[in-house]
Amino acid sequence: MRSNGRNAADQLRPIKITTNTNKYAEGSVFIEVGDTKVICTATVDEKVPAFMKGQGKGWVTAEYSMLPRATQSRNQRESARGKLSGRTMEIQRLIGRALRSVVDLQALGERTITIDCDVIQADGGTRTTSISGAFVAMAIAINKIVQQHNLARFPISDFLASVSVGVVSEKPMLDLNYDEDSKAKVDMNVVMTGNGKFVEVQGTGEESPFSREEMNELLKLAEQGIAEIIQIQKDALGEIALKISSGQAGASV
Amino acid sequence: MRSNGRNAADQLRPIKITTNTNKYAEGSVFIEVGDTKVICTATVDEKVPAFMKGQGKGWVTAEYSMLPRATQSRNQRESARGKLSGRTMEIQRLIGRALRSVVDLQALGERTITIDCDVIQADGGTRTTSISGAFVAMAIAINKIVQQHNLARFPISDFLASVSVGVVSEKPMLDLNYDEDSKAKVDMNVVMTGNGKFVEVQGTGEESPFSREEMNELLKLAEQGIAEIIQIQKDALGEIALKISSGQAGASV
Amino acid sequence: MRSNGRNAADQLRPIKITTNTNKYAEGSVFIEVGDTKVICTATVDEKVPAFMKGQGKGWVTAEYSMLPRATQSRNQRESARGKLSGRTMEIQRLIGRALRSVVDLQALGERTITIDCDVIQADGGTRTTSISGAFVAMAIAINKIVQQHNLARFPISDFLASVSVGVVSEKPMLDLNYDEDSKAKVDMNVVMTGNGKFVEVQGTGEESPFSREEMNELLKLAEQGIAEIIQIQKDALGEIALKISSGQAGASV
Amino acid sequence: MRSNGRNAADQLRPIKITTNTNKYAEGSVFIEVGDTKVICTATVDEKVPAFMKGQGKGWVTAEYSMLPRATQSRNQRESARGKLSGRTMEIQRLIGRALRSVVDLQALGERTITIDCDVIQADGGTRTTSISGAFVAMAIAINKIVQQHNLARFPISDFLASVSVGVVSEKPMLDLNYDEDSKAKVDMNVVMTGNGKFVEVQGTGEESPFSREEMNELLKLAEQGIAEIIQIQKDALGEIALKISSGQAGASV
Amino acid sequence: MRSNGRNAADQLRPIKITTNTNKYAEGSVFIEVGDTKVICTATVDEKVPAFMKGQGKGWVTAEYSMLPRATQSRNQRESARGKLSGRTMEIQRLIGRALRSVVDLQALGERTITIDCDVIQADGGTRTTSISGAFVAMAIAINKIVQQHNLARFPISDFLASVSVGVVSEKPMLDLNYDEDSKAKVDMNVVMTGNGKFVEVQGTGEESPFSREEMNELLKLAEQGIAEIIQIQKDALGEIALKISSGQAGASV
Amino acid sequence: MRSNGRNAADQLRPIKITTNTNKYAEGSVFIEVGDTKVICTATVDEKVPAFMKGQGKGWVTAEYSMLPRATQSRNQRESARGKLSGRTMEIQRLIGRALRSVVDLQALGERTITIDCDVIQADGGTRTTSISGAFVAMAIAINKIVQQHNLARFPISDFLASVSVGVVSEKPMLDLNYDEDSKAKVDMNVVMTGNGKFVEVQGTGEESPFSREEMNELLKLAEQGIAEIIQIQKDALGEIALKISSGQAGASV
Repeated sequence: MRSNGRNAADQLRPIKITTNTNKYAEGSVFIEVGDTKVICTATVDEKVPAFMKGQGKGWVTAEYSMLPRATQSRNQRESARGKLSGRTMEIQRLIGRALRSVVDLQALGERTITIDCDVIQADGGTRTTSISGAFVAMAIAINKIVQQHNLARFPISDFLASVSVGVVSEKPMLDLNYDEDSKAKVDMNVVMTGNGKFVEVQGTGEESPFSREEMNELLKLAEQGIAEIIQIQKDALGEIALKISSGQAGASV
Repeated sequence: MRSNGRNAADQLRPIKITTNTNKYAEGSVFIEVGDTKVICTATVDEKVPAFMKGQGKGWVTAEYSMLPRATQSRNQRESARGKLSGRTMEIQRLIGRALRSVVDLQALGERTITIDCDVIQADGGTRTTSISGAFVAMAIAINKIVQQHNLARFPISDFLASVSVGVVSEKPMLDLNYDEDSKAKVDMNVVMTGNGKFVEVQGTGEESPFSREEMNELLKLAEQGIAEIIQIQKDALGEIALKISSGQAGASV
Repeated sequence: MRSNGRNAADQLRPIKITTNTNKYAEGSVFIEVGDTKVICTATVDEKVPAFMKGQGKGWVTAEYSMLPRATQSRNQRESARGKLSGRTMEIQRLIGRALRSVVDLQALGERTITIDCDVIQADGGTRTTSISGAFVAMAIAINKIVQQHNLARFPISDFLASVSVGVVSEKPMLDLNYDEDSKAKVDMNVVMTGNGKFVEVQGTGEESPFSREEMNELLKLAEQGIAEIIQIQKDALGEIALKISSGQAGASV
Repeated sequence: MRSNGRNAADQLRPIKITTNTNKYAEGSVFIEVGDTKVICTATVDEKVPAFMKGQGKGWVTAEYSMLPRATQSRNQRESARGKLSGRTMEIQRLIGRALRSVVDLQALGERTITIDCDVIQADGGTRTTSISGAFVAMAIAINKIVQQHNLARFPISDFLASVSVGVVSEKPMLDLNYDEDSKAKVDMNVVMTGNGKFVEVQGTGEESPFSREEMNELLKLAEQGIAEIIQIQKDALGEIALKISSGQAGASV
Repeated sequence: MRSNGRNAADQLRPIKITTNTNKYAEGSVFIEVGDTKVICTATVDEKVPAFMKGQGKGWVTAEYSMLPRATQSRNQRESARGKLSGRTMEIQRLIGRALRSVVDLQALGERTITIDCDVIQADGGTRTTSISGAFVAMAIAINKIVQQHNLARFPISDFLASVSVGVVSEKPMLDLNYDEDSKAKVDMNVVMTGNGKFVEVQGTGEESPFSREEMNELLKLAEQGIAEIIQIQKDALGEIALKISSGQAGASV
Repeated sequence: MRSNGRNAADQLRPIKITTNTNKYAEGSVFIEVGDTKVICTATVDEKVPAFMKGQGKGWVTAEYSMLPRATQSRNQRESARGKLSGRTMEIQRLIGRALRSVVDLQALGERTITIDCDVIQADGGTRTTSISGAFVAMAIAINKIVQQHNLARFPISDFLASVSVGVVSEKPMLDLNYDEDSKAKVDMNVVMTGNGKFVEVQGTGEESPFSREEMNELLKLAEQGIAEIIQIQKDALGEIALKISSGQAGASV
């Protein structure tokens, strides 16, 4: 018997995606995966960072943070310590990279989308939950750009979601919560697109190296879980989902 | 006609206090004052900072932050800039000082309560809203301490809430939202106790100095508004409110 | 019997303002209030910060610091710690805000005046002493601008000074020194203009909340004390004081 | 035709491992993989970090840096910028995690081994080269500990090496140099043990998501390349390699 | 004709040393060398830094800073920039090293003396003026220690002062002011003891390398100037000077 | 009998200068002085820092760092500590100043040369070794500029090298290694040009002040040692050395 009333190793925790939760942001989402809760906001800026200037292309970047009491015991704020931890930097680089893999930066034009993922409560899988929520917030923001600037193409090429998998008590499992994650001997975060391709695979066997067979089983679980999450994203996005699927900026009309 | 459907200069915005919103924190509150929304969590630590050691007394401190997109345009994270702004430091010093004024540190014993106020959405009055919410989160956490450690006295001496007042278009007004605040010629934040005494009065007339008469009118508005907020705090606290009123740790039994 | 040979609760400490103490600064003052001693220098820069550009208006800003041994025991330098304390930031924001309240930024034109307040020795009231001294240093610097650039109007609208008041041993008192301040249950810093209006009122009752009556008594003491300080500023400024009073840039001719 | 005179997609660049290059370090290695050159030193400290104290176990950690002119154009020093980049933190976390996966921390006892990987010249694969070199430096240092403290078991459970693979011009390739890496659509870093298990798999398809088939081909290339690198490590380690293979601390006697 | 009414190349600027200028510090001095003005305070701490613990010896260290408007144009505060400049660190290391050369750390016992040199106004020679003033402040503080703790020996072995010399318009000159220093082709700071030995010689010919002959002439000027400064220090120190000369802690009795 | 098989007090350690050791840098050198080993690279940038702009002159600057295990015990990285030590800043300021003394910045034109000195292994004299190596790396880089831009004059006016001298066991000695340096009562770093003039003389007698006679003896040793080092630099530079000697950009043709 697993957390959140789950019976099976291949079962996701309950997922809830609430859209447009912030009155200012161009895109916003409150995503809950079991007890892990993340606010994702997308901000559109009509210019690009210095290193991208003059290429006629856009940019997508992400930032990630946890509230001090998102966790069992309180964590010191990174603003108070005066610097970001290695873990935070690693995660926000991952989120940005993953999102960019499904954005047509040329079609987006010279603008930057910044996705902020703020973890309100953490119970395992905060980085994968952030990616799944960030994609939806970004899609809402991009849809606004498409409408305001009459873009010809919808600049998102595919859906994108992420889940964690791991080997717990010798058993491959999908969507680990914090307890399961602490006991896992292998831990893998997978990011995939709507058409079933991999964008990121990050597997770590610090406690115990893993075999090719274990890896294959984990990837299979991840594929299935991500397909389910993408369906929930589609439901949350409604008409915008159709535009992504068709690649047509005006699909909803 | 004012924001949030208000007709009168002495009218508060709708206030909603939801308690126990965080599964880990010893006390937690989600407070909404109009469109200003703040998560307040209280963390109990069974030790005190170095400068308080060996005095048999407790300590209360606060931290304050805004999510990057709490505001109209996105603010850079203070963790990314590597330091806290003067505004943030000023606000968190104010919150901590205000809370300590109604805590009996001797009765609390050698433990620290850290209140985190994280602004999810900002529409004016984030520091006053933080104080009003922080008091409730702190009271819930202190109630847990009282129960776990069988404290003889309830170590909160009075209620505490805060509101902003200001002179907008020559008219004294209660509880300014962001638009009103931007146009205010005088801006005052007031913190008061349940028995109507002042804990902090911070009035600023950067745009135009103000007279003793204006100050008196503003303080009167603040007194009335704070009394209303304290009533809402009492409703949210339920039985804990009785213990504060009576000073009895076991008032609810 | 109070410090510095004072008999009465409404008595200021001896105040001495020496002008033009620095051979480089456009305005400079050495102000002594009892044993509190502050060097104030005003620097004129013929440009404004980025956020003020192109508005045809000037800017006034302040910085505040204490020498390590200004106090009883040595304080670590903020430059060595690598960051400003919250206290320092709060004070320098206060000084800048207060000074700007009596400067006609339009008449000043696109230039910045930076006031540095460096506390050489501290015995209570360093922030209020800084404000009273900074006003004089600023007035001297502005007078130089007026003369060099033939400004039509003298861009200072009124005098400005500051004093602390507090409740010590249940008694409201004016101009607390360090010992009195440590024992004060209520502590209030007041900044006022020459025509008796308030620019800043910052009252704190961390140790014990205070009543409306106490507040009124404190404000009355502050009004009286500030009027006396402004007279001393006028004596120090000589002809420049006349220009401020008349608003005429050429009053002295 | 590939860089460094290679003809085949599954060919490694020439690898040279020179041991004991530093007169002070407990273990040291100069590793050259084509034009990528890294100095790896291992430092033994007879205590563990605070979070490991009292568990009777050791710790292994790593730091990574590049000389400013290790690259085509000069990079600003991280010491001058005052903070580590996200990339550096990510890499040093990876190296430490990888090394720990083959160390028996219990057998090591309460001591810390710090591996410094300093890139003297970079031509692609600096993180994988660092891991392969760091393993050898660590083994030499651990061998010294084994001898000085007469450890019963040799506290390294297996060999460890790393290589990069990627899809360049639609073709899976082993051991990319900088030019190949810049053009790669998929980029994967793989860390494996001597018995052919995975310790880390980090695959990224930022430019273009990749299929399960591509992943399988890349992993196959990595397996082969790592086996070759481990043979070179064994040659460099000589007798120490026998101790690792046998798990016997005294294998060489 | 040189600055400050000097006629000759071997003439010092007027020097004034005022002692006991700070009501809190164990030793304090206000030193003026022409228009260069420095506040020196000495703080006694009854413990030593970690690296000196348990050796039964004391420590002497120094810090140096300039007020922002000590100079012609305003300098940004190092506290605002968040770090010390290389120049500041170099100077404070120099001052500390110089002072320690004449202190008998054994006789001083396990206590630390921190000398703060704060430049109020700068007109060349701020580091040499700081050293000459710091010695006097330190001697006053050490005399207090000697009296309070009945030390057997006076723990200062000799006098210490410093001066700058340089080659200006091909002519060796003593005690350069800012203008002369800017035009100097060779610049040398010399620290010497009362018995005419060198503690520090730092000569720089960035603009033009210098010969052995020039060096000899400069050193001769420095010797003469330092002897004069030490006489002024003796006058300022009064009876304490006798104790230093005799090495007897009770010389004055 | 001294370290590195030396018999005499006036004997240098074996010196080896290997040129062009880095495939990217415009100039590079690996210099070994006994067991002290430093990598020096010179980077050419076709612009100058802000404070030099528009003067038609070039700039030369230097950075210095040690690998963590360059020393007996491991040093924490300055990048990890988040700031440069005073020692590092002092050394890199010294190197830059010394190099500029022999560069004709006018002839160099508006470009910057940055010399990085990275100490791989330290056994005393790292700053002097850095200067001697940096000069050679800079000369190689400047020769490339001369050729690529057909400069009329070779913009290096003279050779430059550096050595340490000191008084060990009452005896003046040349080129101290770490052991000797730790025991030295006087320590002096000298930088000289090819024609025997001084560029920098930094002598310190922290442990014991030194006399004019000792200073003269030390300078004599330094003169002799530097002349020998410059001969080794000439051998390493080959034809470039002729251009420096003749001042002719085309000397080699």
